[in-house]
Amino acid sequence: MNFFDLVVYNIGELVTMDGADQPRTGKEMANIGVLENAAILVDNGKIVAVSQDQNTISQWQAKEKIDAMQSLVTPGFVDPHTHPVFAASREKEFCMRIRGVKYEEIAKKGGGIRNSARKLRETPKNTLRDLTRKRLNRFLALGTTTIEAKSGYGLSYDSEIASLEVLAEIGQDHALDIVPTFMGAHEIPDEYRSNREEYIRIVIDKMIPEVARRKLAKYCDVFCETHVFTLEETKRILQAAHEHGLLSKLHADELSYTGGAELAASLKATSAEHLVAISDKGIEEMAKEKVIAVLLPATTFFLGSSRYAPARKMIDAGVAIALSTDFNPGSSMTQSMPIVLTIAGLYLRMTPEEALTASTINAACAIGKEKEVGSIVPGKQADFLIWQASHYEYLPYHFGDNLLHSVFKKGKIVYQIQ
Amino acid sequence: MNFFDLVVYNIGELVTMDGADQPRTGKEMANIGVLENAAILVDNGKIVAVSQDQNTISQWQAKEKIDAMQSLVTPGFVDPHTHPVFAASREKEFCMRIRGVKYEEIAKKGGGIRNSARKLRETPKNTLRDLTRKRLNRFLALGTTTIEAKSGYGLSYDSEIASLEVLAEIGQDHALDIVPTFMGAHEIPDEYRSNREEYIRIVIDKMIPEVARRKLAKYCDVFCETHVFTLEETKRILQAAHEHGLLSKLHADELSYTGGAELAASLKATSAEHLVAISDKGIEEMAKEKVIAVLLPATTFFLGSSRYAPARKMIDAGVAIALSTDFNPGSSMTQSMPIVLTIAGLYLRMTPEEALTASTINAACAIGKEKEVGSIVPGKQADFLIWQASHYEYLPYHFGDNLLHSVFKKGKIVYQIQ
Repeated sequence: MNFFDLVVYNIGELVTMDGADQPRTGKEMANIGVLENAAILVDNGKIVAVSQDQNTISQWQAKEKIDAMQSLVTPGFVDPHTHPVFAASREKEFCMRIRGVKYEEIAKKGGGIRNSARKLRETPKNTLRDLTRKRLNRFLALGTTTIEAKSGYGLSYDSEIASLEVLAEIGQDHALDIVPTFMGAHEIPDEYRSNREEYIRIVIDKMIPEVARRKLAKYCDVFCETHVFTLEETKRILQAAHEHGLLSKLHADELSYTGGAELAASLKATSAEHLVAISDKGIEEMAKEKVIAVLLPATTFFLGSSRYAPARKMIDAGVAIALSTDFNPGSSMTQSMPIVLTIAGLYLRMTPEEALTASTINAACAIGKEKEVGSIVPGKQADFLIWQASHYEYLPYHFGDNLLHSVFKKGKIVYQIQ
Repeated sequence: MNFFDLVVYNIGELVTMDGADQPRTGKEMANIGVLENAAILVDNGKIVAVSQDQNTISQWQAKEKIDAMQSLVTPGFVDPHTHPVFAASREKEFCMRIRGVKYEEIAKKGGGIRNSARKLRETPKNTLRDLTRKRLNRFLALGTTTIEAKSGYGLSYDSEIASLEVLAEIGQDHALDIVPTFMGAHEIPDEYRSNREEYIRIVIDKMIPEVARRKLAKYCDVFCETHVFTLEETKRILQAAHEHGLLSKLHADELSYTGGAELAASLKATSAEHLVAISDKGIEEMAKEKVIAVLLPATTFFLGSSRYAPARKMIDAGVAIALSTDFNPGSSMTQSMPIVLTIAGLYLRMTPEEALTASTINAACAIGKEKEVGSIVPGKQADFLIWQASHYEYLPYHFGDNLLHSVFKKGKIVYQIQ
């Protein structure tokens, strides 16, 4: 008798996201593959079968059988844009913003990313690893089973490499899947403010080759923004990254329009991120070159702004949208994909179906994990969530709480309610 | 030897809210009484002593000693405006709003509160009690230890009385302190749309006398709003409530200006709530008559609006502010006071100190519980929260997660992390 590892049965509503493993656009974003009264068969960390046929299901033999009690089950969230390697929180800057100081002003005066860089450099690597590990644990408890994670709070050769090493070390035994991105070009550090070119040369000539040689990152990302890196500088850095075999991402058109989306298209970057101030031409070119838009509405919310990325316009133009928390200590101190779904619904006008597509399969595509995660189909990793809810429309609706019942990563329970 | 029940010691930062048990206004809202390296002595559900003196603390004898591990401790949240007695969630209407239909349009077409009323009337009382009890349990897990709870989804004599009975029955054995409010005048029900006067007479002549006679509520609240109850109708209903010994609250100037704040002042109501569209005159009169403003920024957020109540103007004018979730299935599906603190910071520009005052002692004043809860001082109930954080500014800053370590109600642990 062939026994499989696990059956999860009596699933009231199963969101499979069944479909092609490629970025979904336009009306395709509404097709989330809902099955009622379904079950999932798991073996060796992978999905073996999904069925609604009660006769079939009843014949599945498994070592463990879990009754989903008619609950909703969805794929684990994929969060494709996070900055979890930092040394200290920045609630003081949050309080300055409440009192009316703009994020850009804080950054210009040496706060923001440079504040984080000073703190990270003072922090022993062991401490940084412990802090980061705790944050990664928390992703699992909020239903996120795969993340992209960026360096970028070191801003020196040693501390950028150390940040990526921290991710690699944690990744060796952590349940979360972690896709690392090198982001030495997150800001110009204090010591190179009067000689930015020298810092850019260190990024290009020293950091990128070493990151690539040691395979410490899959992607290279640059903060292309007024007062940060210019369009031309961004292009040079990402071209260097391409030459060393790294794929590219851009923080583009976030706080102001700089043409980042158009650059992302011309470089055939995997994704461009933020895009609050994107131009119509940028949208058109991203659609044409199939660059994924990673939208971060929790950041707009947390910056106290009412100007959100034009998601509907992008969807109408055929740009594939992914959603992410942008988890970072300055502009988005949250690890919760559900609150992102809520904000995306209310302020990007994305339906629950679109938001689920954007936070599972499209997010997986944005970090090159679409063959392994992002949908509940045979052959993929058994990453899924049992909810204390019976319908997927409930997820963005009920906000500010953790509605998870249990979280499965590669077929193992990694979080469960008390 | 006299042994007390409990000592919580090694508190890194203790927010006591020490001060007068009355609504705090203006600059007083910034005084939150922070003690470092403190301890709390509890006996028989009440606070016996609070101290920073290590010699004093070391001499406290208690049956149980809990090490707060240098964490932050605050009073339990008081949520002074909730609608927890409902039969069904309304995520379908949420999805309609995402697609661009306004909340007011949904209400006019028989959705909204009338939708909830139809569902509540079809629901057996036992079921309603079970559903409500689960929601009240959840408040505790999010750090709320006292709530005001309104009826108002029955809109008939029988179902309004039943809603208040549900609250009274749960209140008999539930850890949460529940202050009930009668809100039969939440909307005109379907069957009286062409004869609103008859419904108002039922509220005044039948419901209010019975609620008062059986002491089923402490307050009477009316939704004073365009297309709901007029200023004149609101006045009649609340005057009738006063005659029967009920105190008054108003849903005022929420979606449009109607003069609700001025009416609240003229009636010397305990509080006026929402106040997004309040006039300068309304602010002035509320300050003069010491009517508490209960602000509900999560509702503005959840309605997808960018027009928030003018909190800073009110604070500057000397109006005492309280904060609340407005938990309800239509316009604010959240039970989380921490997310309210975040939204209040970002969009009402309330500092963490002001927001904590507004969600503890001022909220207690808004529901007449200021002698029992809302601050950590000797003689009050031992209602307090141990956080996975070391500084109070962290609470509104890190959003979308539950940062609680443990929740104490009357000296007993009612929630604890795994």
